[in-house]
Amino acid sequence: MIEPQLTNRPSWVNVSKNSDFTLYNLPYGIFKTAKRSPRVGVAIGEEILDLTAVAALGYMDDLGMDVTVFDRPKLNDFIALGKPIWTKVRARIKELLTEGSDLYKHADKVLVAQVTADMLLPVEVKNYTDFYSSQEHATNVGIMFRSKENALMPNWKHLPVGYHGRASSIVVSGTNIHRPKGQMMPPNAETPVFGPSQRMDFELEMAFITGRATDLGDSVTTADAEEHIFGMVVFNDWSARDIQKWEYVPLGPFLGKNFGSSVSPWIVTMDALEPFRVAGPSQDPKVLPYLQYEGDKAFNINLEVALLPEKCQKETIISRSNFKYLYWNMAQQLAHHTINGCNIEVGDMYASGTISGKSEDSYGSMLELSWAGQKTILLEEGGERKFLEDGDTVIMRGYCIKDGIRVGFGEVRSKLLPAK
Amino acid sequence: MIEPQLTNRPSWVNVSKNSDFTLYNLPYGIFKTAKRSPRVGVAIGEEILDLTAVAALGYMDDLGMDVTVFDRPKLNDFIALGKPIWTKVRARIKELLTEGSDLYKHADKVLVAQVTADMLLPVEVKNYTDFYSSQEHATNVGIMFRSKENALMPNWKHLPVGYHGRASSIVVSGTNIHRPKGQMMPPNAETPVFGPSQRMDFELEMAFITGRATDLGDSVTTADAEEHIFGMVVFNDWSARDIQKWEYVPLGPFLGKNFGSSVSPWIVTMDALEPFRVAGPSQDPKVLPYLQYEGDKAFNINLEVALLPEKCQKETIISRSNFKYLYWNMAQQLAHHTINGCNIEVGDMYASGTISGKSEDSYGSMLELSWAGQKTILLEEGGERKFLEDGDTVIMRGYCIKDGIRVGFGEVRSKLLPAK
Repeated sequence: MIEPQLTNRPSWVNVSKNSDFTLYNLPYGIFKTAKRSPRVGVAIGEEILDLTAVAALGYMDDLGMDVTVFDRPKLNDFIALGKPIWTKVRARIKELLTEGSDLYKHADKVLVAQVTADMLLPVEVKNYTDFYSSQEHATNVGIMFRSKENALMPNWKHLPVGYHGRASSIVVSGTNIHRPKGQMMPPNAETPVFGPSQRMDFELEMAFITGRATDLGDSVTTADAEEHIFGMVVFNDWSARDIQKWEYVPLGPFLGKNFGSSVSPWIVTMDALEPFRVAGPSQDPKVLPYLQYEGDKAFNINLEVALLPEKCQKETIISRSNFKYLYWNMAQQLAHHTINGCNIEVGDMYASGTISGKSEDSYGSMLELSWAGQKTILLEEGGERKFLEDGDTVIMRGYCIKDGIRVGFGEVRSKLLPAK
Repeated sequence: MIEPQLTNRPSWVNVSKNSDFTLYNLPYGIFKTAKRSPRVGVAIGEEILDLTAVAALGYMDDLGMDVTVFDRPKLNDFIALGKPIWTKVRARIKELLTEGSDLYKHADKVLVAQVTADMLLPVEVKNYTDFYSSQEHATNVGIMFRSKENALMPNWKHLPVGYHGRASSIVVSGTNIHRPKGQMMPPNAETPVFGPSQRMDFELEMAFITGRATDLGDSVTTADAEEHIFGMVVFNDWSARDIQKWEYVPLGPFLGKNFGSSVSPWIVTMDALEPFRVAGPSQDPKVLPYLQYEGDKAFNINLEVALLPEKCQKETIISRSNFKYLYWNMAQQLAHHTINGCNIEVGDMYASGTISGKSEDSYGSMLELSWAGQKTILLEEGGERKFLEDGDTVIMRGYCIKDGIRVGFGEVRSKLLPAK
């Protein structure tokens, strides 16, 4: 819900109208500075609100919670306190940052300029699952790898296809990634070769983070699923297409993916995303009862991918997509994931799969944008790409706008380094 | 290495010659009793040596380590101290348990009867990978699902195929597992159905646990790989074949596996397994340089699977296999897993994949033993099976024997409960 009593007054912190981090957003992250150990912060405009400092001033004393959870290097302990506490803390932070609060007197203690802080991975990722929930992406890949007639696998419209990914190699925005080496089978070759991947790609995704655990054997319904979700990040699922192609039959992607996945540092909460709820695509054929749901479960989140080659000043926006295009929603993903009794933990990350739209400029990977290397992507400062080159920085952004309200994710930005 | 100076004297603890837990073994686990909180123990005969109690008596004071790591509910902190400490602690425990040590005076403080203790999951599993390293198993499954001519995929002999599994649902021996529900596509049906799996299976596997981390971007060579391995457990990778068959294309197994995997409670260290090192199968075609290795990298570990139906007294041994049958060894698995820079963590678990031998009575799953339901498996007290029935207890055991020395894993035992 939007808290109506507070929406009309601005913050005492200077927040530009185009900022991703308005008073409506209040995303959580982990930051550190030369003087502050890693701890929980909330983004507001170009500042970070240091919750440990806020709590030390006594502003959180009456919330009935252990405020030491803010003085930790991961968000898991805070998230584990549960939704009633998330709601209370959000309301308190909004109140404290709104004009009329006396917190402004302590601005020097509680605010840290974002430019002076390092952002860290916001959660300890307990388990990581990657779905494959964009019909357009699955269809594009299916056409390229098989044929137009057999593009979507028979199971695709009956269940949200997904697979387990590697939690250890999920890193925060700003962490550069080395081009992976591995086995590939060149076209028409008889034996595989070894070397750096020649088909480096990104995948434009979003991921949700669970904040409420279940026991092994229990299932979550689509109606209850959102109660388990704390918030979301933008997610770059780096992919080495040639390594992936050779290895993935029959057990799925492995080394073509697990060398790194990058996330935006601020977790935007489901409370902040509530105003941007919309209907998702209609599903035909009708899904089995455990996957049926009521109400709007998609979210209107604009997404874009920019490419910035080394030594260039000007980035090129190479894709504009939207989270609402996904065929399967998060409630269905979580209901499916747990229908067999698989237990979820606080801090799990569940990525959407590449988010492609219908138009060619909305595709969420180089594989699709260059149609497996058959087309070229032109860059603003000259040059072109089919896949990524060493030194390329990939930037993904996400933001919602409605009725003059902006809630954004900031960005996930990482540079591709040469193979080690 | 066998520590030669100590092998000739027995323990002051009563250890039967047929015990898995001889003085040569000394596996680590986490136990608790009514009076002792979860902590690190070492199995010896039918007893557990309580390392927290041993340390409290001062017997570990000169090892140059933080002995509080023994008073923790997981082994990760101890394991993270590194191989020089593993070696020192192992030598000290062997010395303390050998006749001549005065520890026997404190037997009432430091020994706990295994029958009075509950064994817990020994490590916090950070990441879980499942390989597919038995040629016989991969061939059997390939013949059943495709054809004899196309049984092994083209990549299989070039790389150790593997995929990421679910860490959260790995449980310790004694934890019962509910039959999972899910989507299946019956033969000749047009739309999937929902219900409890009708093809419940186990997979006989072993898993190794890493004890030394790497940074993202770094690789581990086959020569160094064993330095990263702390020890091994027996691993039951429960599988719902009908759910798996419908979901696994193109991204691999997911809900057909992630409802539960069961491990034996005692981690047998690589030091204890050293005497049982043997040559593995020869590999043809020759593998790429990063997968080549020197020396014997297989281990002669006898494995068996027993089935005990509900209300029966007598178990039926339905499979006898051996870890040494695996085509790909652990050093190759770890070298492959990290060749792209994927980072490993302390407490990761890497399972072998189903371990089948050449003979029909050495197959490591019901799928193979019943040849996809075409054959029946006869039980000792009457009755038969093609797949598992509710109430069936599956017991897997592993042990090494050489020159009168026995080192065993104990067992992983779990009952299949009806769907919730």
